[in-house]
Amino acid sequence: MDSFRIKTSKKVEVLDITPMVSRCIKSGSLCILFVPHTTAAITINEFEPLIKEDFECFYSSIVGKGSWKHNAVDANAEAHLLSSIIKSSISIPIKGGSLALGAWQKILFIELDGPRERTVHMQVIK
Amino acid sequence: MDSFRIKTSKKVEVLDITPMVSRCIKSGSLCILFVPHTTAAITINEFEPLIKEDFECFYSSIVGKGSWKHNAVDANAEAHLLSSIIKSSISIPIKGGSLALGAWQKILFIELDGPRERTVHMQVIK
Amino acid sequence: MDSFRIKTSKKVEVLDITPMVSRCIKSGSLCILFVPHTTAAITINEFEPLIKEDFECFYSSIVGKGSWKHNAVDANAEAHLLSSIIKSSISIPIKGGSLALGAWQKILFIELDGPRERTVHMQVIK
Repeated sequence: MDSFRIKTSKKVEVLDITPMVSRCIKSGSLCILFVPHTTAAITINEFEPLIKEDFECFYSSIVGKGSWKHNAVDANAEAHLLSSIIKSSISIPIKGGSLALGAWQKILFIELDGPRERTVHMQVIK
Repeated sequence: MDSFRIKTSKKVEVLDITPMVSRCIKSGSLCILFVPHTTAAITINEFEPLIKEDFECFYSSIVGKGSWKHNAVDANAEAHLLSSIIKSSISIPIKGGSLALGAWQKILFIELDGPRERTVHMQVIK
Repeated sequence: MDSFRIKTSKKVEVLDITPMVSRCIKSGSLCILFVPHTTAAITINEFEPLIKEDFECFYSSIVGKGSWKHNAVDANAEAHLLSSIIKSSISIPIKGGSLALGAWQKILFIELDGPRERTVHMQVIK
C-alpha cells in the first residue's frame, strides 16, 4: 500500500488528484483509493471550473442547516453525514498499465471539513 | 478487462444489466464494474417496475432545480452532481463461479443524461 | 468468501461492525464487504453516540415522505432509494495484516428497513 498527502484550503473543496495517482500506476488490474478520514470523501467526475463550484455548493445543500446533535461535540456533523454517503473509497480498473478512466473522468478528493492536511491510501491489485 | 455497450432511451433511466454481467462470470473472487462516464452511475438494488420509477423520480429530486453554474457550459450539471455521489463503480464478491448477489439484488446502470450509448467496464480479480 | 450475521433492532439503525471484520483479517491486500440486501447499506465513518443519531435522522430526511409508487407493493420504498445511493459494498486496504482504517473510522452497517436479521459477506484479496 502506498500513500500520499494533500493540503486543502477551504471548508468544502473538491480537488483533482488524478496526476498523483496516475504517475504511480505501471501495472496491475485494479487500483483502490481509500481516504482514512471521516470528514472527507473521494469520487470520480469531470473537473471543469464551474462544475467544481457546483459540487461544493451541492454537497453543502444536501445536509442543509439541520440542528445536528454531533455539533454539540464537534462542529462538523455535516461533514460526517456527507462523507458517510459519498464514502471513502473508489475502485478503478487498470488496463495496459494505465487507469481505465473515461475521457472526462478525474479522480476527485472531497474535503468537507477543511482546511486540513489529508492522506490518501492507494492499493494496486495484481 | 472486458467491456460491453448499452443504449439508454431517456434523460434519467435505470436499467437492469445483471444478465450481461452474470453470463461473463465463470471464476475469480471479485467482480468490479466501472462506468467510464461522468453523467451516469452504477448501483445494486431491486428492479421491480414501481421502484424503477421511484428511482428515476428520487434521483431527480435530490439535485432539484438549482441554478447550477455548469449549465452555462453544458446543460447537464444535475447529472454530474448525482453521478459524483452515486459513483461509478461497484464491487461484487464471486463465490463458486457466480456473483454473490442477494435474492433481490440486480445490477443497475443509472443513466442521468440520456439517451446515449454507454460503456461498462468489467474487471474480474482471481 | 466468508459471511456473518447481525441482528438489527429498529427501522433505521446504524451499527458498528468493525470488530466482527477486524478479527477475521490476518493477511491479504484488500477487504471487500458486501451487503446482499436491497434495503440496507454499508459505509465507513465515526461512531460516536450523537453522530449515530444524526446519521439515522439524516438518511430519513434525504428521501422525505414522497408518495413513492413501490409503497403500494411493499412499504419500504424509502429504504430501497437510500440503499441505492449509499450502496452495498466498501473496500478497505489491508496493510501488515490489519485493515488500514483511519483513527476515527469504523465500519458501519446501515439498516434501513428493520428490525431484521442481516448478512454481510467478506472477501479478502491476496
